[in-house]
Amino acid sequence: MTTVTGHTSAIRAKKVIGTSVKDPSGTSIGKVEDIVLDKLSNNIMFAIVGFGGFLGVGEKFHPLPWSVLDYDETEGGYVVNLTKEQLQSAPAYTMDELIRGDGSQFRVEVYDYYDAPRYW
Amino acid sequence: MTTVTGHTSAIRAKKVIGTSVKDPSGTSIGKVEDIVLDKLSNNIMFAIVGFGGFLGVGEKFHPLPWSVLDYDETEGGYVVNLTKEQLQSAPAYTMDELIRGDGSQFRVEVYDYYDAPRYW
Repeated sequence: MTTVTGHTSAIRAKKVIGTSVKDPSGTSIGKVEDIVLDKLSNNIMFAIVGFGGFLGVGEKFHPLPWSVLDYDETEGGYVVNLTKEQLQSAPAYTMDELIRGDGSQFRVEVYDYYDAPRYW
Repeated sequence: MTTVTGHTSAIRAKKVIGTSVKDPSGTSIGKVEDIVLDKLSNNIMFAIVGFGGFLGVGEKFHPLPWSVLDYDETEGGYVVNLTKEQLQSAPAYTMDELIRGDGSQFRVEVYDYYDAPRYW
């Protein structure tokens, strides 16, 4: 069984991390740096998208609801309905901020920003 | 907010992968090799536990429901209520088998084996 975009349902985290994130025209706008897992609810909380390169202390990342990323086999990456400029102005936090406490501090803001269905 | 075992709810996949898995006495019985994510349902399908060392083609891994792993800060690893012998005789599959199709082929068998609540 595959998603509408041909992505199989089961995917290894190691395969997701490092994969390109592209805008609808196929231009790379970043890559998946990590996945934040929710231990309590068994859910995927965020895909963490960065712009690659050297990751300095205090660097900010873009947490995206997992459902926002559609895998495109032709592009060999995840396609999001955002331009690089739109992603740059989207909510961004340091990795430390994102996993502080239970991580739910920014969940509402991020899921609402992308108009993504809440899992909680 | 933390789990009963002191694990915070939000955790990065990169931190989980490579973490030791221990039996209740604190003896290491394996490590987390990868996490299988369910793209369609936003859930964590399995934590893939292996015995470390060189991973040959066709090597079999133990998929565990994420809820079965309790993080123990003192141990610095995940503690499961299984001995190494019990884990060795638990359901095991090649990585290819585990992510084939939608990955749901072995879900019922594995979740029932560990008496873990189904997320689907």
